[in-house]
Amino acid sequence: MKAARLHAYSDDHLHIDEVEEPGVRDPHDVIVRVGGAGLCRTDLHIMEGIWEPIVGTELPYILGHENAGWVEEVGSSVTSVAVGDAVVVHPVVSCGVCRGCRRGEDMYCSNSAFPGLTGDGGFAQYLKTSERSCLKLPPELEPADVAPYADAGITAYRAAKKAAAGLTPGSRCVVIGTGGLGHIGVQSLKALCSAEVIAVDTSAAALELAASLGADHVVPADENVVEAVRAFGEDDGGVEAVIDFVGEHGTTDQGPKMLAQGGTYFVVGYGGRVNIPAIDLIFNEINVVGNLVGSYTELAELMSLAAAGKVELTTRAYPLERINEAIDDFQAGNIQGRAVLVPGQ
Amino acid sequence: MKAARLHAYSDDHLHIDEVEEPGVRDPHDVIVRVGGAGLCRTDLHIMEGIWEPIVGTELPYILGHENAGWVEEVGSSVTSVAVGDAVVVHPVVSCGVCRGCRRGEDMYCSNSAFPGLTGDGGFAQYLKTSERSCLKLPPELEPADVAPYADAGITAYRAAKKAAAGLTPGSRCVVIGTGGLGHIGVQSLKALCSAEVIAVDTSAAALELAASLGADHVVPADENVVEAVRAFGEDDGGVEAVIDFVGEHGTTDQGPKMLAQGGTYFVVGYGGRVNIPAIDLIFNEINVVGNLVGSYTELAELMSLAAAGKVELTTRAYPLERINEAIDDFQAGNIQGRAVLVPGQ
Amino acid sequence: MKAARLHAYSDDHLHIDEVEEPGVRDPHDVIVRVGGAGLCRTDLHIMEGIWEPIVGTELPYILGHENAGWVEEVGSSVTSVAVGDAVVVHPVVSCGVCRGCRRGEDMYCSNSAFPGLTGDGGFAQYLKTSERSCLKLPPELEPADVAPYADAGITAYRAAKKAAAGLTPGSRCVVIGTGGLGHIGVQSLKALCSAEVIAVDTSAAALELAASLGADHVVPADENVVEAVRAFGEDDGGVEAVIDFVGEHGTTDQGPKMLAQGGTYFVVGYGGRVNIPAIDLIFNEINVVGNLVGSYTELAELMSLAAAGKVELTTRAYPLERINEAIDDFQAGNIQGRAVLVPGQ
Amino acid sequence: MKAARLHAYSDDHLHIDEVEEPGVRDPHDVIVRVGGAGLCRTDLHIMEGIWEPIVGTELPYILGHENAGWVEEVGSSVTSVAVGDAVVVHPVVSCGVCRGCRRGEDMYCSNSAFPGLTGDGGFAQYLKTSERSCLKLPPELEPADVAPYADAGITAYRAAKKAAAGLTPGSRCVVIGTGGLGHIGVQSLKALCSAEVIAVDTSAAALELAASLGADHVVPADENVVEAVRAFGEDDGGVEAVIDFVGEHGTTDQGPKMLAQGGTYFVVGYGGRVNIPAIDLIFNEINVVGNLVGSYTELAELMSLAAAGKVELTTRAYPLERINEAIDDFQAGNIQGRAVLVPGQ
Repeated sequence: MKAARLHAYSDDHLHIDEVEEPGVRDPHDVIVRVGGAGLCRTDLHIMEGIWEPIVGTELPYILGHENAGWVEEVGSSVTSVAVGDAVVVHPVVSCGVCRGCRRGEDMYCSNSAFPGLTGDGGFAQYLKTSERSCLKLPPELEPADVAPYADAGITAYRAAKKAAAGLTPGSRCVVIGTGGLGHIGVQSLKALCSAEVIAVDTSAAALELAASLGADHVVPADENVVEAVRAFGEDDGGVEAVIDFVGEHGTTDQGPKMLAQGGTYFVVGYGGRVNIPAIDLIFNEINVVGNLVGSYTELAELMSLAAAGKVELTTRAYPLERINEAIDDFQAGNIQGRAVLVPGQ
Repeated sequence: MKAARLHAYSDDHLHIDEVEEPGVRDPHDVIVRVGGAGLCRTDLHIMEGIWEPIVGTELPYILGHENAGWVEEVGSSVTSVAVGDAVVVHPVVSCGVCRGCRRGEDMYCSNSAFPGLTGDGGFAQYLKTSERSCLKLPPELEPADVAPYADAGITAYRAAKKAAAGLTPGSRCVVIGTGGLGHIGVQSLKALCSAEVIAVDTSAAALELAASLGADHVVPADENVVEAVRAFGEDDGGVEAVIDFVGEHGTTDQGPKMLAQGGTYFVVGYGGRVNIPAIDLIFNEINVVGNLVGSYTELAELMSLAAAGKVELTTRAYPLERINEAIDDFQAGNIQGRAVLVPGQ
Repeated sequence: MKAARLHAYSDDHLHIDEVEEPGVRDPHDVIVRVGGAGLCRTDLHIMEGIWEPIVGTELPYILGHENAGWVEEVGSSVTSVAVGDAVVVHPVVSCGVCRGCRRGEDMYCSNSAFPGLTGDGGFAQYLKTSERSCLKLPPELEPADVAPYADAGITAYRAAKKAAAGLTPGSRCVVIGTGGLGHIGVQSLKALCSAEVIAVDTSAAALELAASLGADHVVPADENVVEAVRAFGEDDGGVEAVIDFVGEHGTTDQGPKMLAQGGTYFVVGYGGRVNIPAIDLIFNEINVVGNLVGSYTELAELMSLAAAGKVELTTRAYPLERINEAIDDFQAGNIQGRAVLVPGQ
Repeated sequence: MKAARLHAYSDDHLHIDEVEEPGVRDPHDVIVRVGGAGLCRTDLHIMEGIWEPIVGTELPYILGHENAGWVEEVGSSVTSVAVGDAVVVHPVVSCGVCRGCRRGEDMYCSNSAFPGLTGDGGFAQYLKTSERSCLKLPPELEPADVAPYADAGITAYRAAKKAAAGLTPGSRCVVIGTGGLGHIGVQSLKALCSAEVIAVDTSAAALELAASLGADHVVPADENVVEAVRAFGEDDGGVEAVIDFVGEHGTTDQGPKMLAQGGTYFVVGYGGRVNIPAIDLIFNEINVVGNLVGSYTELAELMSLAAAGKVELTTRAYPLERINEAIDDFQAGNIQGRAVLVPGQ
């Protein structure tokens, strides 16, 4: 089959290789015919070699961890999906018997794999995953349209869900960064609660997108952003929650300063540091919450929202063979929404 | 009446003055005959002038914000306490009609006073407070024995209660600093859940105290403390919660490093900074939670624990006239437990 | 002033009397110039004498417990509202210092009054209430339009809020009875979560209303209603929540039978009995939750939804003098939405 | 191997048969050498034929669903337990991929088996179960001592855990029935929170046991039991929670009447009906909560409590061959605690 593989860390392009198709080996293996595979900034970071010291995956291997498609073949113990089912693939291959899995927190699995990072992924015609990672799609949804939900989507959704749990009508929530993840975050918030959403971004286009998706207010991310956000409250009061999809370039300082007493700063983006005097944490009694990729159950919830049209994703399809063009466009900031690789059959 | 007042910021002693007794003016005013008033590190900070730029209380005034005693006189609208009732006094005088008060979070009151900091406090024979701050004591408890619960106690209890909400049997919680607040924290945790408690302190005496109060493990706070704590878990696994009653001298770095994935670091002590790369917050999906003084309801809960003998406080009584001796002993680290000032009658 | 008073239990009409205006007596009293007062089925029950043995209010007195208007005069201790403010009035006059009030559950106040039931209410030009009951209206809202939220509205909202806390995207919630309270319930659910809402009613008009307000499915309340509801789930699976605004005529039997394992039946309407074999409660592990009128905080949240246009109320205004016509129309089932009495000035 | 099998419904004894040992067939199968198997009232109900129309298991088959022992053999995909491990066996064999399992609610598994009820159980030398049901025992615990926790234990623990989540210091919780399940309930409550526990039973011995295990008050279950319980509160106030381990003989009427406003009645025992006027549910705003057997995670938590000595179980061992003697003793009410069958090797 055709597959896009990384041959050397620091290569800025992938190679389209002819490789052997993956086959079922374990009783819970599932082979998925890829219908779409999202291109993620993490793929670029892998190519830069950032992940080499952490996971050290042997080269060459196939990237792609935001996958959806159709079940092609199943192992002997698989009962919950069948050949032909359209599925979106949770990025973590989890064991189902460790403490994390027992609690429904697949991302805490102590025996996990992450295809596309720790081994072959979905920039190919076929992907090997496991039964526990396969979620059947409702009939309204097509694999190529939903692939990016598999990682970017559930990361944004999980943070929004945590925030929404503490937001009542009359509360305010700031979303810093309304691009790829953030625009899913805005829609998820609007679907999960009735708090006012204040979108913050450096890009006017991103703010326009946020407004069109339901953000109640938009604020440019300049040096007055903290004051501008607080001005929506009585007596310059702070907000109940901030979700930071940027996590660098000063947002980790600004975010906590936007909070009301008792408020919570949710960190999703990274690069920067959260650096707060203990006394400020205490006097304002604020919280800082880290956010990882969502669980399988959260992926199912997000698919319900997508099927109901409450969350939408702008995607741009590229044939798998033109993945390097997609990478170049992504690097150049020329993609509106997410690039999705679609293998020819 | 006799009262211990601060005459000049940076004075290291208080003056015993003869001043006018406070009187009822507003319909919800309550005059309390003081039975005991705890001496708190915050009193020393006030004397150092740290709080001057923040609250700017006019001198001279009476310190003392951890108060208990007997109701002496009540305003015309007071119905929930009566003359003669033994009461412990919540340190915040709250309005009862703002958003914070409506939620039961008295400390978020937007119209609050804090006697002993923003005006005359309890180092005196009589204290003026308001109905909403008075909590009737169960018959088992004496004012002079419970005064320090009014601030130190509920601060430790609130943090322990937040932590306990996420701790199941088999979980582990570290308590950093098992002195004045921390030893109430250890007892509160043991009363509220069945997690294992790991006490960490630089002082062997504090660790001994923690063990005698139910801590399951004690660990000296040296340079190996993170590894020592993690060694109690399988595969050097981290703990579900850390409550940091120190908040300086390196504990704000060590605390977060002790956590398991999904764990929470509760900050109570201050002086240092919480400084964590966003990527660490995210990959370990950890939380940082600030903690303020507890609410009236939490004071009531803590009094239930005290009445049942589940939380005990070591106190050392000083006559009000000898408050400067108490201050000297406190500064010198010579007080086991908390000093309580007891006015003669 | 003019007021509509009940002169004898079992009278089917009220008397328009000229009575003395209420005056401030206690420091927290607030006199409200009534802008609108909702007519509620409870008013009819009071006139029938059902409440006489329970509260035994002395006749004659003024009915009306769903009130909104403008602050006319305030007691000396009132700080949170001022003369001229437009307010909606929480129906419970609460003390602010009992255990219920401390938790924010005003309805559990152990020293409460309920004007319009336990004493003079709002079918008059002026109403006496207390500061803790007054909620300032946002500028978008007019007293006469929102008065019925003060009791009917927050009862429906509270039940919907409790249900929404357990509903994720992909969950289903049945609303039995989509009339006066139920149609607020449907809108509140849609505002608070993304569960599918299944409306059940005997009236086609009520179902049409529910659909226009966002219900995803409508089901006539006939003998097949349980099967019809379960048919929306896979394998005839039950729903996660049922909110029953009827509570009689068989709904208390049907509601629990609609539930999936682990589901919850919320009871708001009454008249019938909940009668379930313990073994069924256990094997399906279902819950039954009673629902009272909402708290002040919930009234504030509902006003936020109303100001944002997320919850709307159909009302029909009657001059106060024509209250008996409103009563007759109500009894005859001729009012779409809620009748609101508007005193001339 | 030797096994105790039911040959005919309505037989009052089991047959000790020589049968073939179970063998591994599926990749996740685990064969456990039985160390102890608890005798449960459900076993008697199965023999009476009550379950025949529900599960219709083909005769003869081996009873016994409260099992513990040592892993004897594992399927090819098993990774979390190894031959020789001491394990307690969760009674539900669950699939790990359905919605219930994903949430950690193994009892809601839509593809479950229940060995000892739906097929061969543990009254034998060997038991076949699956990997997901096996929980490794801490070194402090022996299989024969803990077997009854596998079903009776986690049922009591789950109810106590749900109740404890709403109980603060100063709250009161009634436990109706402090026998087999109830005495685990009392201990679990004391371990999980600091509410006062009021034990109610018809048997003086059961009340004595409850007191020795930490119940704060004991009340005989006579016709004055509701008043007696309410008398512990101020103004005859009700309690925050009632856990009913009896569920018949009038307790389902008494339990709800013991509640304070906002309180919750937890039903564990069955036989009776919960029958409450809707208006009472509403005016007191009370809740009724059904309780099923606990999850795997709850079994792990209970084992932590047992290992720490916070929950203890009185058992009486019988050799497997003398199971009919155990049944006779159980029927006659002659067993203090639980009977555990121990197969000879």
